[in-house]
Amino acid sequence: MTETFTLVLLRHGESEWNAKNLFTGWVDVPLSDKGRGEAATAGRQLAEAGLLPDVVHTSLLRRAITTAHLALDAADRHWIPVRRSWRLNERHYGALQGKDKKQTLAEFGEEQFMLWRRSYDTPPPPIAPDDEFAPTGDPRYAELGDDLPTSECLEDVVARMLPYWASDVVPDLRAGRTTLLAAHGNSLRALVKHLDGIDDDTIAGLNIPTGIPLVYTLHEVDGELVPTERGGRYLDPAAAAEAAAAVANQGR
Amino acid sequence: MTETFTLVLLRHGESEWNAKNLFTGWVDVPLSDKGRGEAATAGRQLAEAGLLPDVVHTSLLRRAITTAHLALDAADRHWIPVRRSWRLNERHYGALQGKDKKQTLAEFGEEQFMLWRRSYDTPPPPIAPDDEFAPTGDPRYAELGDDLPTSECLEDVVARMLPYWASDVVPDLRAGRTTLLAAHGNSLRALVKHLDGIDDDTIAGLNIPTGIPLVYTLHEVDGELVPTERGGRYLDPAAAAEAAAAVANQGR
Repeated sequence: MTETFTLVLLRHGESEWNAKNLFTGWVDVPLSDKGRGEAATAGRQLAEAGLLPDVVHTSLLRRAITTAHLALDAADRHWIPVRRSWRLNERHYGALQGKDKKQTLAEFGEEQFMLWRRSYDTPPPPIAPDDEFAPTGDPRYAELGDDLPTSECLEDVVARMLPYWASDVVPDLRAGRTTLLAAHGNSLRALVKHLDGIDDDTIAGLNIPTGIPLVYTLHEVDGELVPTERGGRYLDPAAAAEAAAAVANQGR
Repeated sequence: MTETFTLVLLRHGESEWNAKNLFTGWVDVPLSDKGRGEAATAGRQLAEAGLLPDVVHTSLLRRAITTAHLALDAADRHWIPVRRSWRLNERHYGALQGKDKKQTLAEFGEEQFMLWRRSYDTPPPPIAPDDEFAPTGDPRYAELGDDLPTSECLEDVVARMLPYWASDVVPDLRAGRTTLLAAHGNSLRALVKHLDGIDDDTIAGLNIPTGIPLVYTLHEVDGELVPTERGGRYLDPAAAAEAAAAVANQGR
């Protein structure tokens, strides 16, 4: 029998800006009360499924960090090692950050709106350095220097996320650690695109719901970790399908 | 001017068992609502004082882990690297864990009670392996094997805490990182004893209050990091004095 490795993806629960239907990106908003509840529920689901993380990776944004904290506390795994990287951050939404999704749709029209939201290689307009939501001067990104993004498309997220996957996540998996990634809609879509070998057009239709653990069993094929089952499995498949449909309809 | 290093000690806020006046030790009880508030207040005090941690070390117990999470979130430093070790855990209280402090005082008398609470080298009776509060089989301590304590006096805590101080905390300080230690009454007393060179008798009278940041500025003397000012300084000295007096009267 071949060795397998367990990866659990968890998109943060609802944030205060999800609730208000604003583009968030790198703006560091907290979870809503509903989002806090989702995180704890996800942790209980992990414990009930016997999927106990040995290590957690998060972005540098508090909605992912708090989701990890609450989920692990509920699963009695609050004490495991923590690793963090900006490379797991949400997609930088550029000048759209802080804008209302419905207003943006009305202002720019369906075609432009969907291009910004779901095009693989077209980033939104860049954020101005003096924009109130620009990460300029934020100490957590000091090491990035000129690499600090001003806007990102999904292709950009794939490009900055995959090096971290290879350098930091894969070694944890190969060491036999059940690995939890608490991150964001687009950094997780970028990873799922890679894992499942989804093409640039098809990924547009893939939505990952908040707060429902998505479990991948991986095995090694030609030196790469690949899923034994394409698409992984949600611990609560019915809720996942319902939530994914709701995400697809944002801005409507 | 000599280089200095900044260390911030933070004893976790009130736990549910502090509130009930029970011996806690390694029993993994959550913070009370008051304790959660204390943690957030401590974080705001750090931010107001401009003492922004670059790295945090915690024990493996959720009251310290949650205190770190809430304090750092309030200080907008939730994204910093996290390190954890059982060596920062509270003193293991042996067979006393889960016992009421007042009842223990009544049952065993003042002398025995104070010996267990404050003697440097007399541990309480060992916990039985099948005690409901024994850490036997707890996965977070699996690596300890036969070194898993069954009871500890403060001397034991010093002996298991100092190696971690030297191997993991001092390198962070020497790298110029403002270092936050979110831990427990006795693991912090053990460290303060070492830093301030307090003798085995005098340490009995030292209490560290919950939820008030204690800041040490350290400099190097003969290859060791030692405080520039003995005893450090509390960010809220009046509250610290009041709280330390209250701790000293527990069980009365």
